[in-house]
Amino acid sequence: MQITTQILQKLHKIVGETFVFTDQETCNHYGHDETEDYIFPPNVVVKPANAYQVSEILKVANQHKIPTTPIGARTGLSGGALSIYQGIGMSMERFNKILNIDEKNLQVTVEPAVITQVLREAVAEKGLFYPPDPSSQGSCWIGGNVAENAGGARAVKYGVTKDYVLNLEVVLATGEIIWTGANTLKNSTGYNLTQLMVGSEGTLGIITKIVMKLLPKVTHNVLMLVPFYQANQACKAVSAIFRAGIIPSALEFMERDAIDWTLKFNNTININIKDNIQAHLLIEVDGNYPEILLQEAEKIMNVVEEFETDEILFADNEEQKNTLWKMRRSVAEAVKANSIYKEEDTVVPRYELPKLLSGIKEIGAKYGFKSVCYGHAGDGNLHVNIIKGDMTNNNWNTQVTRGIREIFELTVSLKGTLSGEHGIGLVQKNYMDIAFSKTHLELMERIKFVFDPNNILNPGKIFPDEF
Amino acid sequence: MQITTQILQKLHKIVGETFVFTDQETCNHYGHDETEDYIFPPNVVVKPANAYQVSEILKVANQHKIPTTPIGARTGLSGGALSIYQGIGMSMERFNKILNIDEKNLQVTVEPAVITQVLREAVAEKGLFYPPDPSSQGSCWIGGNVAENAGGARAVKYGVTKDYVLNLEVVLATGEIIWTGANTLKNSTGYNLTQLMVGSEGTLGIITKIVMKLLPKVTHNVLMLVPFYQANQACKAVSAIFRAGIIPSALEFMERDAIDWTLKFNNTININIKDNIQAHLLIEVDGNYPEILLQEAEKIMNVVEEFETDEILFADNEEQKNTLWKMRRSVAEAVKANSIYKEEDTVVPRYELPKLLSGIKEIGAKYGFKSVCYGHAGDGNLHVNIIKGDMTNNNWNTQVTRGIREIFELTVSLKGTLSGEHGIGLVQKNYMDIAFSKTHLELMERIKFVFDPNNILNPGKIFPDEF
Repeated sequence: MQITTQILQKLHKIVGETFVFTDQETCNHYGHDETEDYIFPPNVVVKPANAYQVSEILKVANQHKIPTTPIGARTGLSGGALSIYQGIGMSMERFNKILNIDEKNLQVTVEPAVITQVLREAVAEKGLFYPPDPSSQGSCWIGGNVAENAGGARAVKYGVTKDYVLNLEVVLATGEIIWTGANTLKNSTGYNLTQLMVGSEGTLGIITKIVMKLLPKVTHNVLMLVPFYQANQACKAVSAIFRAGIIPSALEFMERDAIDWTLKFNNTININIKDNIQAHLLIEVDGNYPEILLQEAEKIMNVVEEFETDEILFADNEEQKNTLWKMRRSVAEAVKANSIYKEEDTVVPRYELPKLLSGIKEIGAKYGFKSVCYGHAGDGNLHVNIIKGDMTNNNWNTQVTRGIREIFELTVSLKGTLSGEHGIGLVQKNYMDIAFSKTHLELMERIKFVFDPNNILNPGKIFPDEF
Repeated sequence: MQITTQILQKLHKIVGETFVFTDQETCNHYGHDETEDYIFPPNVVVKPANAYQVSEILKVANQHKIPTTPIGARTGLSGGALSIYQGIGMSMERFNKILNIDEKNLQVTVEPAVITQVLREAVAEKGLFYPPDPSSQGSCWIGGNVAENAGGARAVKYGVTKDYVLNLEVVLATGEIIWTGANTLKNSTGYNLTQLMVGSEGTLGIITKIVMKLLPKVTHNVLMLVPFYQANQACKAVSAIFRAGIIPSALEFMERDAIDWTLKFNNTININIKDNIQAHLLIEVDGNYPEILLQEAEKIMNVVEEFETDEILFADNEEQKNTLWKMRRSVAEAVKANSIYKEEDTVVPRYELPKLLSGIKEIGAKYGFKSVCYGHAGDGNLHVNIIKGDMTNNNWNTQVTRGIREIFELTVSLKGTLSGEHGIGLVQKNYMDIAFSKTHLELMERIKFVFDPNNILNPGKIFPDEF
């Protein structure tokens, strides 16, 4: 891809010279996210300040058919923000304001580059609650959360990002600016373009404002760590908790290895794990009435003890709670520090978790790879970290790809799918044929064409190279 | 429209002669729903038994460009099921089975012609909870609920139909059969065709199976009827309840007239309303711990009493609860029995309700019509029944149309929209320009074209006649 001087001049005119970058260092910086070790730098990085500038940039890109990739916090795990066909990398970083916390309607209007945790804390100060909490909440942006339909630990009770998005200001590939819906809790007015946009990974438009619903703040929670002698028993316990009539506010699964690697990686986390423990569930219940939470915790205890548990640890204070959450949230980073790896974001109906877990191990044995599994078990959402370890590069590129394909075939056969919360992006796109027929993929492709006739918006994502 | 003998023979071959009807009585029967007094009979009524037959019918319809309207329970209030261009009326009535209540995953797979209340009761027997409860739940079908994205009283806490739909089996206009998603609680795998299909009013495909998530059953509730001296004060109280940190499981508003007409219409409802009461809120809280519900009810009482209430009535037993709900649910029918009327399904952010209500009254005064307002105030969803009374036909057709246009302009200016839960269908389509720009409507139209290139599926709905 070539960006001509003439195009650069147009970009300068739109955003000002100080917000256009063509030096290699900047382009490299914006060319990677948290997905493996991929680097795909754009030819030029542009940093617009408002929807009008985004619109003008897209008009230029559309006229000259320049690939344009919206770039967020680059914490993504599916390569959604990588400029794989170069062109314009549009960093959204200047869209960093919380525009309005509407306490009267329990809504917030926010720009896409606000850090998720910053948003959560800002609304909490007003007594309000934005539940979605991806593990990367301290660094990811709300716009990326919308683009990938991010989840997090609290999704099991409170839903994922999509469940909070009411309305979006979107700049279309052709430069028009629309609001997708209305600022209402209910809406049966035409096709749901809001939900079509959520999770579309920057391929249908560029989001410049987000209206989200909020809940009243929840005041109390109880957190417990349940050790199991067998990983499959832990998986089975997950479904039993719901069948007992309880909806926990978090229900996380960690394999033994996930914890071992985490404790090795971060020696500030001080938890003692017995040798005979193979997996843990981290379980939280929340609400406004502490006495009820203790009753619910007891009910959960009675349920899980049917599945051969060791002594259950209750977090006594905020510090212990933070330690347990830190352990859970450090798993990905710990695995990354330990070895080259690939992370798959499998999801199945929650009762199928034991079958998924044992299937993954069998597939790993067949193709010669080790995996570390953990994730949001309450949602049936298991993150599978496939470890390179001392595998040859050749096996890593051939055997592992075959193994991943089998893992996804397994998830789909269990009525699950490829990604629960990370998106398809670059690295899962060539598995899409497992989940969708040719007819289905063509429908999606034609929808893409409706929004983006010249295929300039984040090209090379979601859709398989051939179908 | 002409249905030739040749086409009839093809239909006979697909579904069997006994399931094809061309007599006027049957066609008239399937030509109306609950929308005003409209009758638009199809030329032929066909009753397929399975997705394969639907597919074969659509292949014929698509080849011969025959308008085809899916017909549900015909309880709709926006004319979605009316065969306004004649052609084939496809009654879905034989799709009447609950296929699987999956207690292990808290999911249900259901065909579209199952009555919503039948579904709710069937899952309740297994200790499970399907929350959406449109007022017509005793007669409407779950397929129609999905097509129109129906709501109901419990939506304020539990969400609307869309929040429970995980996956849909859909027959496309061209006859292909797809599943839109996966049976999972989270899904970031390609564009969200499931949510695009929900609320698309039969214009994008014909739904033949629905996978929905369920919740564990909730065991207790407290119901209270709060009388207000002023309607606007009742509206103001709505937002205050949420700001106090409480999410009621129902929060319904009824104007004085709505109750008067209902009590006159149904003399089995025995409630005494004082002369100086102008509006009521019917408020329910639910949960599994009765002692907590009493605390919450007391909190609500303290909040609403700030807004000049008369004595609050607590329902003491199931019978009283049923009476109060019967009163609320009979309003629409009572208004219908009293006069020719038009019902508009306005929705705004809930704090804007007082402005909406007083605006509606002003607009009514300007154009000379009376309105009776009631609805799901917790969602900001106000049903506006415009009464013909002794208006001339001429004024009814001209002045009221202008008035409705102003009402919708008001809702949109308050960041609301045209329909909260009834859909656009036939009767609201020519107001769509108020909510959407030409660009936006064209996007929707091109999406329609992706799914239905010959415009055979429920033509003449949603989109304005000109834009």
